[in-house]
Amino acid sequence: MKKIGIIMGSDSDLSVVRKAVDTLIALEIPYEVHIYSAHRTPAEARDFAVNARADGFGAIIAAAGMAAHLAGALAANTTLPVIGIPLKSSVLDGMDALLSTVQMPRGIPVATVAIDGAVNAALLAAQILAVSDEALAAKLDARRAAEAEAVREKDRQLSL
Amino acid sequence: MKKIGIIMGSDSDLSVVRKAVDTLIALEIPYEVHIYSAHRTPAEARDFAVNARADGFGAIIAAAGMAAHLAGALAANTTLPVIGIPLKSSVLDGMDALLSTVQMPRGIPVATVAIDGAVNAALLAAQILAVSDEALAAKLDARRAAEAEAVREKDRQLSL
Amino acid sequence: MKKIGIIMGSDSDLSVVRKAVDTLIALEIPYEVHIYSAHRTPAEARDFAVNARADGFGAIIAAAGMAAHLAGALAANTTLPVIGIPLKSSVLDGMDALLSTVQMPRGIPVATVAIDGAVNAALLAAQILAVSDEALAAKLDARRAAEAEAVREKDRQLSL
Amino acid sequence: MKKIGIIMGSDSDLSVVRKAVDTLIALEIPYEVHIYSAHRTPAEARDFAVNARADGFGAIIAAAGMAAHLAGALAANTTLPVIGIPLKSSVLDGMDALLSTVQMPRGIPVATVAIDGAVNAALLAAQILAVSDEALAAKLDARRAAEAEAVREKDRQLSL
Amino acid sequence: MKKIGIIMGSDSDLSVVRKAVDTLIALEIPYEVHIYSAHRTPAEARDFAVNARADGFGAIIAAAGMAAHLAGALAANTTLPVIGIPLKSSVLDGMDALLSTVQMPRGIPVATVAIDGAVNAALLAAQILAVSDEALAAKLDARRAAEAEAVREKDRQLSL
Amino acid sequence: MKKIGIIMGSDSDLSVVRKAVDTLIALEIPYEVHIYSAHRTPAEARDFAVNARADGFGAIIAAAGMAAHLAGALAANTTLPVIGIPLKSSVLDGMDALLSTVQMPRGIPVATVAIDGAVNAALLAAQILAVSDEALAAKLDARRAAEAEAVREKDRQLSL
Amino acid sequence: MKKIGIIMGSDSDLSVVRKAVDTLIALEIPYEVHIYSAHRTPAEARDFAVNARADGFGAIIAAAGMAAHLAGALAANTTLPVIGIPLKSSVLDGMDALLSTVQMPRGIPVATVAIDGAVNAALLAAQILAVSDEALAAKLDARRAAEAEAVREKDRQLSL
Amino acid sequence: MKKIGIIMGSDSDLSVVRKAVDTLIALEIPYEVHIYSAHRTPAEARDFAVNARADGFGAIIAAAGMAAHLAGALAANTTLPVIGIPLKSSVLDGMDALLSTVQMPRGIPVATVAIDGAVNAALLAAQILAVSDEALAAKLDARRAAEAEAVREKDRQLSL
Repeated sequence: MKKIGIIMGSDSDLSVVRKAVDTLIALEIPYEVHIYSAHRTPAEARDFAVNARADGFGAIIAAAGMAAHLAGALAANTTLPVIGIPLKSSVLDGMDALLSTVQMPRGIPVATVAIDGAVNAALLAAQILAVSDEALAAKLDARRAAEAEAVREKDRQLSL
Repeated sequence: MKKIGIIMGSDSDLSVVRKAVDTLIALEIPYEVHIYSAHRTPAEARDFAVNARADGFGAIIAAAGMAAHLAGALAANTTLPVIGIPLKSSVLDGMDALLSTVQMPRGIPVATVAIDGAVNAALLAAQILAVSDEALAAKLDARRAAEAEAVREKDRQLSL
Repeated sequence: MKKIGIIMGSDSDLSVVRKAVDTLIALEIPYEVHIYSAHRTPAEARDFAVNARADGFGAIIAAAGMAAHLAGALAANTTLPVIGIPLKSSVLDGMDALLSTVQMPRGIPVATVAIDGAVNAALLAAQILAVSDEALAAKLDARRAAEAEAVREKDRQLSL
Repeated sequence: MKKIGIIMGSDSDLSVVRKAVDTLIALEIPYEVHIYSAHRTPAEARDFAVNARADGFGAIIAAAGMAAHLAGALAANTTLPVIGIPLKSSVLDGMDALLSTVQMPRGIPVATVAIDGAVNAALLAAQILAVSDEALAAKLDARRAAEAEAVREKDRQLSL
Repeated sequence: MKKIGIIMGSDSDLSVVRKAVDTLIALEIPYEVHIYSAHRTPAEARDFAVNARADGFGAIIAAAGMAAHLAGALAANTTLPVIGIPLKSSVLDGMDALLSTVQMPRGIPVATVAIDGAVNAALLAAQILAVSDEALAAKLDARRAAEAEAVREKDRQLSL
Repeated sequence: MKKIGIIMGSDSDLSVVRKAVDTLIALEIPYEVHIYSAHRTPAEARDFAVNARADGFGAIIAAAGMAAHLAGALAANTTLPVIGIPLKSSVLDGMDALLSTVQMPRGIPVATVAIDGAVNAALLAAQILAVSDEALAAKLDARRAAEAEAVREKDRQLSL
Repeated sequence: MKKIGIIMGSDSDLSVVRKAVDTLIALEIPYEVHIYSAHRTPAEARDFAVNARADGFGAIIAAAGMAAHLAGALAANTTLPVIGIPLKSSVLDGMDALLSTVQMPRGIPVATVAIDGAVNAALLAAQILAVSDEALAAKLDARRAAEAEAVREKDRQLSL
Repeated sequence: MKKIGIIMGSDSDLSVVRKAVDTLIALEIPYEVHIYSAHRTPAEARDFAVNARADGFGAIIAAAGMAAHLAGALAANTTLPVIGIPLKSSVLDGMDALLSTVQMPRGIPVATVAIDGAVNAALLAAQILAVSDEALAAKLDARRAAEAEAVREKDRQLSL
């Protein structure tokens, strides 16, 4: 199976990113995690993206806050799908990261998920791999069914 | 090759959606276009999503404005990747559609692109198919290279 | 008397929703509470809405956060009045839920109240039933009068 | 049948309000239209609201822009359902009117629809009357079905 | 000397309003404080405004949050200067109250100060009285000079 | 009667400011208009403010767009009431000017009116002078009554 | 004298960028203009920044819209001052570009000017060169004085 | 070496400003820190700016919150580069200060950094001095290299 690359701009983003890692582990999808900064180590970020397809990656998840350029900087150097997680930071409630991630110019898409949406980023990466992997697709369907059943059970237990 | 489904909420969204269609045509990717409204024809939208994988689709693009629920409504009924295009409408400059599309709850991701970003939605769909299709990946790389060369040529021609 | 349906998207919304329940209890209006998610259990949400009028409901209250599609998803499947409570979540202070709830397209209205406005949602539901129920209208008028008297008493007690 | 009151703050709001009137006419619902300003003719606005239930009204629609107090000012003087239409004006794209209309304090709800959402305001008023009027409910269901069929027809005609 | 009326919409606004009171006390300006709600006791609010000039008031300060209609409701019933303090509440950081207070329609101004700006509201009221009261103007000038000197002293003490 | 100073930051603001002038003329209130820029001619702006009370002014109106510092710069140099008109410019719909004008720090109030609210700025200035001028107060009351009658007449003429 | 580099992300940005060029020409400051895209020609953008100091540049101006990464991408590869011009595009009025440009993470500053503020970007570049160039500083002071005199002349001519 | 002036509007801004001071100390750049308020001590602020170039300053950093006029008020009185730090305060998350600082009118630029971005303000000031100071440029390059190495080391240590 192809690997998922998970890139964060700073180790301070670890608490959010960990949820993406946990989700991939639960789905038994191989991954690599790195700290590459679009601004402080741009060469490392670029090199990772340039080689990602040849290195066996199927999609890249990038998490960054503020003027969140990381996902865009990776996307500029690969035609693999790049998934952006805008991170909430100490001001503006993540709106800066959301707009910096999603408003990409024509030609270079970033698949943006919700602010701090690390679980969904991992699920989206899994869904992308599952387009050509029926076993993984079945696993995702089963997970959906289990979550639906959990909601139904909570509804049955509800007494108000 | 798997098909791309392109769903719009209303025929008034056609002028934006057409750019996604043109991009898929240029990449020789098969597609189907439909008008399904999350609110006015919810059953049709659901049925399309439920059957999309079995019907040979590899990804779904959904374009909607205002309280743009279409991408989310499709994503709730399939584990195929769903790409959301938030549309600018007559008020709020598309911010309502952007937040309604991207801020999905845990479990049901929507891969959101820029407001009115139809070309990028098509490119992202192509990139998703290309994860397991080397010929398409090569085509996307070639397109990127051509666009880069076009920018370089404009830079060379620039006299200011 | 017709019942009020109160639907929340997740059991994490219970603390806000409880205020709607308490308000209906105080007004002696029958109600049912359910956890139905527009995204995780869309079939249950749809079925509830489709049958709500026949099942004796007079209005539906829906509470959801982020890309809050729940009220709209219910409204798409019934012509009963649907009242939306946008919920504040951990980012964006509820603005995402407000726009996702209120900016509904032509044809499918959602009666939106303030962010986290659960008491007002219940009062609005009561006011809707009271259009054809003079006793309930009198009860609502009395409640208003009591609240006005409480404000007047606070004003009289004020010493600053 | 009970009447719907339609109040606008200024005659400059007529082009939007007319769509609410047309919708009520199509549904054969009796109505009255008035220009009452929360700020320039507050006594007229108050008197209308105070007497609305006794005068045979079942719901009130209020349309106003900027610091849109009209719906709230009416709601403060009646326990009939009051539906607020926030109007887009020359600055801020209607965000000021939306927040001024929807963010009502506990005790006095306003059922807010989308910015400039006059058709939906009329439909919501009709849905409120239909809670106790099966014929009107049937008419609303038929309208929904017709609109769904129109969307389906547009989908069938679509060739792209 | 004319009095300043200080009106708050709810006793929960007391902690902010108290700073306006303290400022007026420090300036030896007579005042009255009341809790009148634009929505829950609209008659009291109106009556206060209608009679304010005859009752010896020179300006009115109104503090309210959310869809903050209080200042506008008072201003609609008097041609005395009405000063609005938009209050921060639990969502939207006071932006709703700011827009509801400042975006008044042509004909009915509200003199709006910063969110939670109670001290400035009192100072503005004092400045309005001081237009025709040289002693008060001198007192305000002295207060300004003292505050400037305090800043200068802090600058001199600064060691960094 | 004291004069009203009307200051604009640039001659491009003339079309909005003219409405303030016309309103003062209609009320027979003396005024002076100047172009003083907080940034390009700060000395002139300061000198005007420092001398305004001695020069016979009763209030100052300041109109500026973008990072609208003009009202604050004048207010820093006088204890006369300063009324700020935030101007809409080519981006951000006036939100920048609104926040730059209204969010003044403790100690230096600016009485802010709506974006482009020049008529209300003039009326507020008149209301300030009218605190100690019964004839002007009567004139303002008469104007209000006339405007209310105009609204009532439009309501009577309305046929829809 | 050191040169100013002016980089735009697309030739569609030319109309705004031209004002920066004209300003530098008026100040007789040498410059080079290029079209380098952070996303479509990232290598060219990087190479320009890496070599800019050695190539005789004293500051770099970067103009880009939407998720405006250009200024940040250049700043990541040089310690020369980089000035960012956020450009207004067809949605969101430039707010996306502003936040993407100004909210840079610790370590990599971008000197951001107003949305579409090309003249000020050129003036800021000139001011930076003038720190060690007294003749240029004198020229900037003279320009300021002339602009102030122009405002004063407009004030003298004003008749209203 | 030229000095950097660091001006804050209030001593409550000290905790943010201190990071700018620490950064300059680490780079061995001489500095002066002052508390000058654009509104409470405008004369001191102006005098500092007017004399700054002659007094040996090479750039000025100004930190202020709310309607943050300080940077603009300094910039109006000098052609030295002025760097603005918008400060987050108790409401609006710093958006008011950001727009008040960055949206300067044509002719008077302020080099704006991120909200609370004191370290970057100091680095930008250093980069400005380094345009004509090769030793300082080398020091900045070394700092960049060290920070990049720190990120690389964190990446190597990462085990997830």
